[in-house]
Amino acid sequence: MAKDTLKFIPFESFEIGQVQTFGAYEVTKEEVIEFASKYDAQFFHLDEEAAKHSLFGGLCASGWHTCAMTMAMMVENMDKTGRSLGSPGLDSLRWLKPVYPGDVLSVRMEVISLHPSKSRPEIGIVKNTVTVLNQDGVPVMEFTSNGIFPRGKGAD
Amino acid sequence: MAKDTLKFIPFESFEIGQVQTFGAYEVTKEEVIEFASKYDAQFFHLDEEAAKHSLFGGLCASGWHTCAMTMAMMVENMDKTGRSLGSPGLDSLRWLKPVYPGDVLSVRMEVISLHPSKSRPEIGIVKNTVTVLNQDGVPVMEFTSNGIFPRGKGAD
Repeated sequence: MAKDTLKFIPFESFEIGQVQTFGAYEVTKEEVIEFASKYDAQFFHLDEEAAKHSLFGGLCASGWHTCAMTMAMMVENMDKTGRSLGSPGLDSLRWLKPVYPGDVLSVRMEVISLHPSKSRPEIGIVKNTVTVLNQDGVPVMEFTSNGIFPRGKGAD
Repeated sequence: MAKDTLKFIPFESFEIGQVQTFGAYEVTKEEVIEFASKYDAQFFHLDEEAAKHSLFGGLCASGWHTCAMTMAMMVENMDKTGRSLGSPGLDSLRWLKPVYPGDVLSVRMEVISLHPSKSRPEIGIVKNTVTVLNQDGVPVMEFTSNGIFPRGKGAD
């Protein structure tokens, strides 16, 4: 998709307490192992038998893989609802529970604060608590995201 | 590698100010596009021509891909020096500069604090500032990691 066909969400349209829920990402054993082979080659992400004797009790996804799967859901959501100009980073991230093959992940985002930029009046930062849940509604990961959105004339 | 062949670093061996540097991860266009296709399908991570007109001035790696490449270097280092029992998460993460194909990334970790667990005397948390640098020594990403390490008898 070229940049000029993208829809950006104006900063002014956000309110504290707004909640979005989206996504249904099915975690597969093949993908858990493929990601870990490239980026997080620890036995509990690679070897089903050995992982049974780990702290996690079975093969589980790399925490970074869970981040990547979450981003895939966020981008899919952006394609529907509109997007940010980017992100400077996260304020905090916690891997709360293991993510296992067969789990189906979804995302809940809640706006927690709005920061119009003082130095750059054309943008603002929206902070969200991003909670990733499994199919039982159990939070498996949580972080605070920072999205940059266009403000005033910049949102035209 | 099975768990019983792994070497864990005792919590007591860490000191504030200790620095480790390691890694040389060459970022390729193919891998940038492959990761983004699966997990971060935004045009500036996928389309070399369109990316020239983006804020980044050219095709660049997903921030989550930079996290994954960093973890690959950290696991390689763990295989040499020893490892943690796991991580509850990060305290903060900033994507400071774009990461482009052709860049060669490396990692600098500095111990910034040590937290023996009060409730679980057999473990402690070591916080590190993790800085990812490109081939020009420019920091492209920084985060605070939390590693869980065995303490006292647990380190035997």
